[in-house]
Amino acid sequence: MSSKVPLATKEDLSIAYTPGVAEVCRAIADDESLAAEYTWTSNLVAVVTDGTAVLGLGDIGPRAALPVMEGKAALFKEFAGVDSIPICLDSTDPDEIVETVARLAPSFGGINLEDISAPRCFEIERRLEERLPIPVFHDDQHGTAIVTLAALRNAARVTDRKFGDLRVVVMGAGAAGVAITKALHAAGVGELVVCDSRGIVHAGRDDLNPVKRELVEFTNPRGLTGDIAEALRGAQVLIGVSGGSIEEAALAGLGPDAIIFALANPTPEVHPEVAAKYAAVVATGRSDFPNQINNVLAFPGIFRGALDARATHITEAMKLAAAEAIADRVGEDLSAGCVVPSPLDPTVAPAVAAAVKAAWESR
Amino acid sequence: MSSKVPLATKEDLSIAYTPGVAEVCRAIADDESLAAEYTWTSNLVAVVTDGTAVLGLGDIGPRAALPVMEGKAALFKEFAGVDSIPICLDSTDPDEIVETVARLAPSFGGINLEDISAPRCFEIERRLEERLPIPVFHDDQHGTAIVTLAALRNAARVTDRKFGDLRVVVMGAGAAGVAITKALHAAGVGELVVCDSRGIVHAGRDDLNPVKRELVEFTNPRGLTGDIAEALRGAQVLIGVSGGSIEEAALAGLGPDAIIFALANPTPEVHPEVAAKYAAVVATGRSDFPNQINNVLAFPGIFRGALDARATHITEAMKLAAAEAIADRVGEDLSAGCVVPSPLDPTVAPAVAAAVKAAWESR
Repeated sequence: MSSKVPLATKEDLSIAYTPGVAEVCRAIADDESLAAEYTWTSNLVAVVTDGTAVLGLGDIGPRAALPVMEGKAALFKEFAGVDSIPICLDSTDPDEIVETVARLAPSFGGINLEDISAPRCFEIERRLEERLPIPVFHDDQHGTAIVTLAALRNAARVTDRKFGDLRVVVMGAGAAGVAITKALHAAGVGELVVCDSRGIVHAGRDDLNPVKRELVEFTNPRGLTGDIAEALRGAQVLIGVSGGSIEEAALAGLGPDAIIFALANPTPEVHPEVAAKYAAVVATGRSDFPNQINNVLAFPGIFRGALDARATHITEAMKLAAAEAIADRVGEDLSAGCVVPSPLDPTVAPAVAAAVKAAWESR
Repeated sequence: MSSKVPLATKEDLSIAYTPGVAEVCRAIADDESLAAEYTWTSNLVAVVTDGTAVLGLGDIGPRAALPVMEGKAALFKEFAGVDSIPICLDSTDPDEIVETVARLAPSFGGINLEDISAPRCFEIERRLEERLPIPVFHDDQHGTAIVTLAALRNAARVTDRKFGDLRVVVMGAGAAGVAITKALHAAGVGELVVCDSRGIVHAGRDDLNPVKRELVEFTNPRGLTGDIAEALRGAQVLIGVSGGSIEEAALAGLGPDAIIFALANPTPEVHPEVAAKYAAVVATGRSDFPNQINNVLAFPGIFRGALDARATHITEAMKLAAAEAIADRVGEDLSAGCVVPSPLDPTVAPAVAAAVKAAWESR
């Protein structure tokens, strides 16, 4: 961190601190909206976690989660000029997390929720979203869903298919799986089947949490039951966001020219070289293979756009616009080995920001 | 804010974020003490307020308080290289504030409480101090007390007096007044009398809160009653930290070669030119007169020293060592017009840090 203003003379000091700062305080006390203009909140995001679902490591607690939040803060700054602060909470109780974040909110312009385990993350996001007048965005849900949607849009183009004709299996019903399923449904995917660790999510199961039960309403229209192999038979797309692994035998049931996104991090559900035997397009979360599905393509530009627009929420239209902008950045490079831009492409975040801002302004 | 590491290549990205960051997380999950080494917490302080007692402006709320916290963050960095984050809380309930700060604590290496109104500030600090394994320091109390103690030590030298012979009147029994009174008592001042807005604090009053009642036990040994003029009669020192004003007539009762510190900010209890008619040494909080009593002489070095020492608390010995270090920095410039160093003196914070660290290590 560094100061934006010099502090070399008594005058500098009397402006940056007392007595000069009192005038700024008085102005904001009279008109709270001036805080966005006179303080750093308009460029500041809290990266909030409770450390319960960190990468593929699981519940490692708030202190051990901090390096991920610091890395995230570095990416926010590098790709979108957004300042952000890791806030690692010493509580895993949803009520306490909601109360704590709500109390902190005056210090920030946006809240990026991160690595909070499902299904708690859904409730926490919803309650904060309803309560706060600033954008709240659970990146493990929506960041992943946005980049996955962008990649699938381009993979469908490469394999010459329409979204309405796709049969997609989502393996994993945690934060990312649920958000991806909802996003693909909203984007018009023909058939969605979700699998969790106990197999296909279907109406006959009595072990579904409320969020999975909600998925049943618009997935699995043929009422499939059984394991992932059953779900994959004849499907064109497998999206793995489970953190588990998948037997190679199950992949053999996929239709021709299939699409496999194995996104578990750091170890994909299926090794990309194995996946390539059964699919025309393969993507992972790994940087050492083609088609890296990396949230960094989404979150910096999304918050840049939302902050620039002074948006009070991140709407579905803003998320969809972000996915379109990411997909479009591939341009003429589009191929089976290039369905998403490089995570290092510096043109992505500005394009996403512009699309997100425009989506808010035309709401 | 900026990133300490480059993010230009895929390798950079895979180290700063996934998958590389997972190794750092695993290490901290195994040994939490490594967080100080592997994250920025060892150089990071939360500047926490609820906006209830901001400068002399009073209860202006968390959003309007933010500019002061930002200014403070700039001073932390400029004078001691300490990173700090303004945390302005949307709650004024002591229980909620304590719970909120305790939940945030894993993200920080220290907690600087700021501009929280008395008497709530005393309880909040005490409870956090007891609960957290990192330094908690209410600057309006102890920062002010430390710099005032340093200034009074030098003012006593200039007027050739011993602390044990001094009769001191503290006007104001809020955060600063209480902390100054306790610090001067611990430093051996001969007689202390405290006045609040209703006059002299004495055992016969039935309107004293628990903190003021505690003061009665070691102040006002002659059992004075009445107003500030009564208290000042024959005293050598007036320390104003009330935010109010004082009649010139009352000052006439002061003994010869008196010392007046009128520290209310931005408007001193008595104008320094008026004070000079009745005192040999005059100090204020203002930068446009000599002897500016400014907390910036204390808090940057105190947290620098505490963080460097990995101290879990700020002890009384550390505060006393800080005051001595500040007083000593005046050196050969010592005179009635120079009882404290300039707030801009870059040698003060390192000297304070070294003294504070040494005091912790020899505890």
